[in-house]
Amino acid sequence: MSLLNLFIEAGNLKKLRRSGWVLRGIPNPESIADHSFRTALITLFLADELRNRGVDVDVEKAVKMALLHDLGEARITDIPMPAQGYFDKVSGERKALRDILKPTKRAEEYLELFEEYESESTLEGKLVKFADKLEMLVQACEYERAGFNALDEFWGALESLRKSDLYPHFKDVIEGLVRARKQNCLL
Amino acid sequence: MSLLNLFIEAGNLKKLRRSGWVLRGIPNPESIADHSFRTALITLFLADELRNRGVDVDVEKAVKMALLHDLGEARITDIPMPAQGYFDKVSGERKALRDILKPTKRAEEYLELFEEYESESTLEGKLVKFADKLEMLVQACEYERAGFNALDEFWGALESLRKSDLYPHFKDVIEGLVRARKQNCLL
Amino acid sequence: MSLLNLFIEAGNLKKLRRSGWVLRGIPNPESIADHSFRTALITLFLADELRNRGVDVDVEKAVKMALLHDLGEARITDIPMPAQGYFDKVSGERKALRDILKPTKRAEEYLELFEEYESESTLEGKLVKFADKLEMLVQACEYERAGFNALDEFWGALESLRKSDLYPHFKDVIEGLVRARKQNCLL
Amino acid sequence: MSLLNLFIEAGNLKKLRRSGWVLRGIPNPESIADHSFRTALITLFLADELRNRGVDVDVEKAVKMALLHDLGEARITDIPMPAQGYFDKVSGERKALRDILKPTKRAEEYLELFEEYESESTLEGKLVKFADKLEMLVQACEYERAGFNALDEFWGALESLRKSDLYPHFKDVIEGLVRARKQNCLL
Amino acid sequence: MSLLNLFIEAGNLKKLRRSGWVLRGIPNPESIADHSFRTALITLFLADELRNRGVDVDVEKAVKMALLHDLGEARITDIPMPAQGYFDKVSGERKALRDILKPTKRAEEYLELFEEYESESTLEGKLVKFADKLEMLVQACEYERAGFNALDEFWGALESLRKSDLYPHFKDVIEGLVRARKQNCLL
Amino acid sequence: MSLLNLFIEAGNLKKLRRSGWVLRGIPNPESIADHSFRTALITLFLADELRNRGVDVDVEKAVKMALLHDLGEARITDIPMPAQGYFDKVSGERKALRDILKPTKRAEEYLELFEEYESESTLEGKLVKFADKLEMLVQACEYERAGFNALDEFWGALESLRKSDLYPHFKDVIEGLVRARKQNCLL
Repeated sequence: MSLLNLFIEAGNLKKLRRSGWVLRGIPNPESIADHSFRTALITLFLADELRNRGVDVDVEKAVKMALLHDLGEARITDIPMPAQGYFDKVSGERKALRDILKPTKRAEEYLELFEEYESESTLEGKLVKFADKLEMLVQACEYERAGFNALDEFWGALESLRKSDLYPHFKDVIEGLVRARKQNCLL
Repeated sequence: MSLLNLFIEAGNLKKLRRSGWVLRGIPNPESIADHSFRTALITLFLADELRNRGVDVDVEKAVKMALLHDLGEARITDIPMPAQGYFDKVSGERKALRDILKPTKRAEEYLELFEEYESESTLEGKLVKFADKLEMLVQACEYERAGFNALDEFWGALESLRKSDLYPHFKDVIEGLVRARKQNCLL
Repeated sequence: MSLLNLFIEAGNLKKLRRSGWVLRGIPNPESIADHSFRTALITLFLADELRNRGVDVDVEKAVKMALLHDLGEARITDIPMPAQGYFDKVSGERKALRDILKPTKRAEEYLELFEEYESESTLEGKLVKFADKLEMLVQACEYERAGFNALDEFWGALESLRKSDLYPHFKDVIEGLVRARKQNCLL
Repeated sequence: MSLLNLFIEAGNLKKLRRSGWVLRGIPNPESIADHSFRTALITLFLADELRNRGVDVDVEKAVKMALLHDLGEARITDIPMPAQGYFDKVSGERKALRDILKPTKRAEEYLELFEEYESESTLEGKLVKFADKLEMLVQACEYERAGFNALDEFWGALESLRKSDLYPHFKDVIEGLVRARKQNCLL
Repeated sequence: MSLLNLFIEAGNLKKLRRSGWVLRGIPNPESIADHSFRTALITLFLADELRNRGVDVDVEKAVKMALLHDLGEARITDIPMPAQGYFDKVSGERKALRDILKPTKRAEEYLELFEEYESESTLEGKLVKFADKLEMLVQACEYERAGFNALDEFWGALESLRKSDLYPHFKDVIEGLVRARKQNCLL
Repeated sequence: MSLLNLFIEAGNLKKLRRSGWVLRGIPNPESIADHSFRTALITLFLADELRNRGVDVDVEKAVKMALLHDLGEARITDIPMPAQGYFDKVSGERKALRDILKPTKRAEEYLELFEEYESESTLEGKLVKFADKLEMLVQACEYERAGFNALDEFWGALESLRKSDLYPHFKDVIEGLVRARKQNCLL
């Protein structure tokens, strides 16, 4: 087991489609890697923006966390919501991530990032959770703009974004997205 | 909850791709419904052939079992082999199938078919397991014929086919497939 | 020619997309096998439900008929409606099916099932025709839910479902689907 | 019925995949329009080359013929070889083409081009048939280069290219393709 | 470098998707070859119609121009509108086309056709530009009919169609398309 | 123009396929976002590994650079190698990136990262270039494993990896990949 194994296994995230979109009938939707990419990019810009405003955020940690937050799915796939009543997804994902990270020398550190993300126990954990949900809604908006329907369920995530500690900082982005949605997501 | 709900949920099997092929890089491979269809078709012909030979097989039961054998995946998806070390797939699938079948009046009867399939405890259970594996190998052969590689792992299923009680009846089919594979799966 | 040839040729049904959806611009729509699978599944549940109600239906025969009803298309493909003015589709399909079934020992019996389906001359023939059309409408509903349009033409099949001898038994399912359609096919 | 109807119906050729490739398991292969485009392009260059050499060829007629040669498939689809034993494809195609061309004022002239193509009764008919087969082999070569297999059958068309009256003019192109194929179709 | 090289490179137009549709989220949209095919077909019918009306149009020239108008994109791809502020697309396309056409003996003649198309300096140039835009709008109409949205931007091309010298000849087609669009592009 | 605009435009990277694979005939290959994701992930692990070995590398800077290195392609698309003789790609990409980054308050800082990447003028620039090429080769290996051919050209990147200042640190990974390729990229 070497880093090369890890790099190849991470390639599964390119092949696996996000199951939420698949089950709503969107043909050939984004991959998990697509989602992880933009989540990391959003994290980068939001973290730097927080720093601009004098918030003491660890940007390196946040971006790493974003890159790693779905890596466990390279092994367990994107098990959809309705399936999660039948399995303890997070527990399986944690174990899978541990195994995937074995070739690295900092597995414990990376796993700790996953835990902070899952529990939102740190500023960076909250930020990546925020970016993760925001990324999904931007994607939902894009799919609706293209003509796809029946995505209302996803917009339930708005509520948790609005309740987040980070909402006051990024109210413009979130409410801008809500307005954009009303105008068919055209900016 | 009505039969209509069940019919709509079964539609997920058309949208979900078989994860084994996805992870080996086959673009847009068969759906779970595709696989279930041919498994049921193979079951039909093998069951009738057994009956021709005087074997006392319940064809109706076998074909039903084949149609239902992956229905639980409409809710839990096709969780791939490497993920199954992190979850008890069959347990989750059983529970999901129970919930999916609630709108029917014979849920217990159908669940019993799933159990016979999983445990191969009856002739029909053995037959559908045999058809399930055979279907996968025919598909592997077709993918290899088209030019896809790295499918050796799947052919490990040959061994269990050869050990099956049904092998003596269908030796020609199985060994014909093995020969076909050597000739690039061209018949 | 052996059963293996038949199994491989049946694989064409996985590769061929249903032409009705293709011509309305749905990207990468369901395969013929996808459709056949759910038609057989619907047949199974409706047949058992009829039996529950004391109707004397041959479930085995019905499910087999459903599995075989489009098998001829493995050779002739899903020739779309507008083309059928230029060819005698059913005649060609019958001949193709006869050739496809040659490796089996019960070809005449299976062909008889196809005739009963085409002519709706038996209860099982009526049931599979009913399931075939219902399956198509459930799929239309799913595509409309996802955002696809211009599928009104398909809903003309409602009329023949309502005129079917089986309609009184499954009025709830059919009218439930009509209601679902009005609510964007969300259940 | 107006020209607009014809233009819209011709759009079907973009949606329909060439069935020969589909049945050999090539995922999402070229459309009929893709094929028709390159056939017309090849016709253009070969016709001009003939003219360069002093051959009296009607370039306009040849290119039009190439653009129209598969237009009937907008209505009847690309019925594959094995199906043609069950239907008289050319007869159906001819009738469909007649109906498609109704909005034009030169339908008879265009239908005559189709007949010359089918019967290879004129120089231009021979040329478009030559371009049609050559186009298919160039595509086969490209698919083989990408890694797809089991396309030997298509290369049977080489024989008719070599027997064509046009072969002496384009021997370099044809034999260059044969050599390219031996080098994995890399030029 | 031979004609065979040119034919193979033209195959890129089958693989490359039209970027305008890709960026609006249409899954797996038409190829450049698909578009070129129908543009040439529309050119054929419009040119013949002009001739019917006594207009002195060079049909051969027009159809050739249509077949060649996007050939440069086989090398430079379909660089989308927003990118064209950063590159001189036409200049690059011209140079690429020159290189692609090297194996032919009439490269200068073909390049001249490209220039007439780009500058609309001749009747044939105007006609192919007209057909090119009309083809795009027919496609937009088809995508809208299928349920795709956010294509308003494309319909800006209507204005240039209405200002074209050819509009008086083909007013029925253009305004028929505008009416069709209002009726969900159903004819 | 707000951050939301940037996030939406970055979504183009999910829709755009990497043109190198497209032109070699790989159906529906990875998106630019897919590639950027794994490039960033590889950068993360290699940067941390360098740090483990006492090399003074700015991990935050490196990971950000990786996330941004192809962001300009959201506007100019992935212009393929053969097109780059006709355009000054890097110049256009730089200008596009500048415009895309306008909604951020640190555009100059981010642009500087792009320059370091392009010029490999810093350790981090060298690292991301290394990760970018390594990512491509891992992907080539995966495609070859799946059965795709004609990817030799890509492996020319090996030479620049071996000449990189970082090669001594990651010789095991690079040579492991070369060995893996010889074994059909199976680990």
